[in-house]
Amino acid sequence: MKNNVIVGQSGGPTSVINASLAGIFKSAIDSGRVGMVYGMRNGVKGLLERRVIDMREYIVEEIDIELLKRTPSSFLGSCRFKLPTPEFNEQMYIDIFHILGEMNIGYFFYIGGNDSMDTIMKLSDYGARINSPIRFIGVPKTIDNDLAVTDHSPGYGSAAKYIATTVKEIIADANVYDTNAATVVEVMGRNAGWLAASAALSRGSDCDGPDYIFLPEIDFDIDKFLAKTEKVMKYKPPVIVVSEGVKLANGKYVSEMSSETAIIDAFGHRLLSGTAGYLSNLVQAKLGIKCRGIEFSTIQRSAAHIMSRVDMTEAFQAGSAAVQAALDGATRRVVILKRLSTIPYVCAMDTVDVCEIANIEKKIPMEWIAPNKADVTQDFIEYAYPLIQAELLPFMVNGIPRHITISSKDQIRKRVN
Amino acid sequence: MKNNVIVGQSGGPTSVINASLAGIFKSAIDSGRVGMVYGMRNGVKGLLERRVIDMREYIVEEIDIELLKRTPSSFLGSCRFKLPTPEFNEQMYIDIFHILGEMNIGYFFYIGGNDSMDTIMKLSDYGARINSPIRFIGVPKTIDNDLAVTDHSPGYGSAAKYIATTVKEIIADANVYDTNAATVVEVMGRNAGWLAASAALSRGSDCDGPDYIFLPEIDFDIDKFLAKTEKVMKYKPPVIVVSEGVKLANGKYVSEMSSETAIIDAFGHRLLSGTAGYLSNLVQAKLGIKCRGIEFSTIQRSAAHIMSRVDMTEAFQAGSAAVQAALDGATRRVVILKRLSTIPYVCAMDTVDVCEIANIEKKIPMEWIAPNKADVTQDFIEYAYPLIQAELLPFMVNGIPRHITISSKDQIRKRVN
Repeated sequence: MKNNVIVGQSGGPTSVINASLAGIFKSAIDSGRVGMVYGMRNGVKGLLERRVIDMREYIVEEIDIELLKRTPSSFLGSCRFKLPTPEFNEQMYIDIFHILGEMNIGYFFYIGGNDSMDTIMKLSDYGARINSPIRFIGVPKTIDNDLAVTDHSPGYGSAAKYIATTVKEIIADANVYDTNAATVVEVMGRNAGWLAASAALSRGSDCDGPDYIFLPEIDFDIDKFLAKTEKVMKYKPPVIVVSEGVKLANGKYVSEMSSETAIIDAFGHRLLSGTAGYLSNLVQAKLGIKCRGIEFSTIQRSAAHIMSRVDMTEAFQAGSAAVQAALDGATRRVVILKRLSTIPYVCAMDTVDVCEIANIEKKIPMEWIAPNKADVTQDFIEYAYPLIQAELLPFMVNGIPRHITISSKDQIRKRVN
Repeated sequence: MKNNVIVGQSGGPTSVINASLAGIFKSAIDSGRVGMVYGMRNGVKGLLERRVIDMREYIVEEIDIELLKRTPSSFLGSCRFKLPTPEFNEQMYIDIFHILGEMNIGYFFYIGGNDSMDTIMKLSDYGARINSPIRFIGVPKTIDNDLAVTDHSPGYGSAAKYIATTVKEIIADANVYDTNAATVVEVMGRNAGWLAASAALSRGSDCDGPDYIFLPEIDFDIDKFLAKTEKVMKYKPPVIVVSEGVKLANGKYVSEMSSETAIIDAFGHRLLSGTAGYLSNLVQAKLGIKCRGIEFSTIQRSAAHIMSRVDMTEAFQAGSAAVQAALDGATRRVVILKRLSTIPYVCAMDTVDVCEIANIEKKIPMEWIAPNKADVTQDFIEYAYPLIQAELLPFMVNGIPRHITISSKDQIRKRVN
């Protein structure tokens, strides 16, 4: 009897996280070497509650694969769940491996960011300890692009394309009046400025791009921010991009300035919001001009209607590479993207030991930050430019993009049966 | 000697305001009956300062027309400028007609909303009084869709398409965790709920759409809002759309509430938040769940990368119709869109006397608001559905949409000369 596959999605969604799911599903089926392909609802949390679907009941036709590639957010649902260590809660591991055993799982795939790679590491370590034959492979996913070792992460390119496009449109809008008004655009990225930096990709002969980009890699100085904004004000309406994660030299997040009570999530991360809101109020108060704060919020990770084709293809390939690695006998590994060449852009898939990635954050290298400390250099542009290229157009139905969802498929299945 | 044309853009930008400019430019040139086509920078305000361009120096090739159609925000720049009455400031009229006379203007086109139509009315009235031969024609433009008489306004369809698409993507994102969290999405529209209502177009077999839509046509009741949100919370993460213009029964805007309960920051500044910001804080405080406020801000009027083809075509046709009317001898008129049929959707251009439109606001009819007063009926869907159909794809250059701007063209002209 062939072993079965199980796949889960974890952490924040991206525009292409389902392309990796499609890659795993299709490669597993096409290999002819696996039995069932199960999907865990809401990651390991759902697995523990035995909330699992048979993927083939939902991805029935080839058009379903194409819809999956075009559907943002996690098809299977996600979780923010930090697996405790076996020393702290071994029962949880016993339960997970018991469920996986009952389901005859041979291959376990987890699509996610840092915390998900931590899950892969813990499960494969525990599996090794109990001599489990199950192979555990991680597939990288994060709009933040902060995973180590991999050249970049699936999900980043599409978010960067959305940010570059939308910042360009915001700048076009901001330039329309000859009266002065400022705009502060807040972009996600807790400790790494990759997303904020991608606003620089809006520059071209038809757009000057943002006047400044403030990255979390550099201590944020409120006086310098105001001075820079005031300088720009003299000749044009300033448009300034800030990372949600910018911090003062004393380590305090700018977003905390508006409220001393920061919310801490299950991983101990501070939940940030309101950097743009705070700074735009400040510009208004100190510089006496109207200032608009714009937050991309969850739109930047779900705007699949403007996804990068390069990003989508790589997300799909990363899923395929994970299946290939597992079938080849690998375990406790994560797929990484290896850039072979920038001009022309060529990128291949590889795998590394999960401990090289889990719980490590990759920031923008200091030499890619401009001397004024409020912009990026051409090296960053050359790095990021290939990742936002080309489009995968949505299937437009009734004027808006069509998605595939578990509940819509459930409705169809009910009707058919 | 043939008379010249002058055209201006006024008020807030839209994704297709330049399609109307393209329609005026192309129809004027193609008619063979006009001399120069001038564009006023920043509307009448720029005209008074003689900031005027020769459009043919900027729109040189056919591809420039296509780029203009795909460029959001006002190519010529805009202004928010209410022309005083001649009784109050006749000198301004004398100046304007003097400049227009010097430039041998025979046809004056103004693309804009309510206030711009007021400008057309005042200028044509004054022109009639002094026996000026200049013909004044208005071209409607507003994302708010609040202009009277016309079935709908160019600009609305594209904003509605952006809102429906993005609300759908936000809902996909919000449903990803099994833990409960709410989202409040704020949409533009000060006194008319057309834009907020367009979020209902996100509904389909793959998306339930927003749980509630709060329109400015209905008094906003905070207790009912909280009760409705709490009801939804029991079975799914609530996603609620509110118009920026929702008001309490006492006439106070919900967005004003934040100034009373404002958080004071470290600098002693009052932090103002918008309607979504206020309501999401309220949900968090009163219902004890995480709540995200999302504001579409200026993106909803400049997201040309997802414009409606129907809207773009009509905007272009409205510009053409204005030229045709002026050449036919009309003045003091505004182009309107007349829906001849909904199934199949057929819409024709016509003109009406400007006084029928200027300074009148069209709201959503009460019979199109759902009985629960927090949604729209199928009648609204049937009305709005045709307006978001089909796409005009951007010209993608370096992974992002290419636009045409006056300054980029100035640079090319400098290089060539």
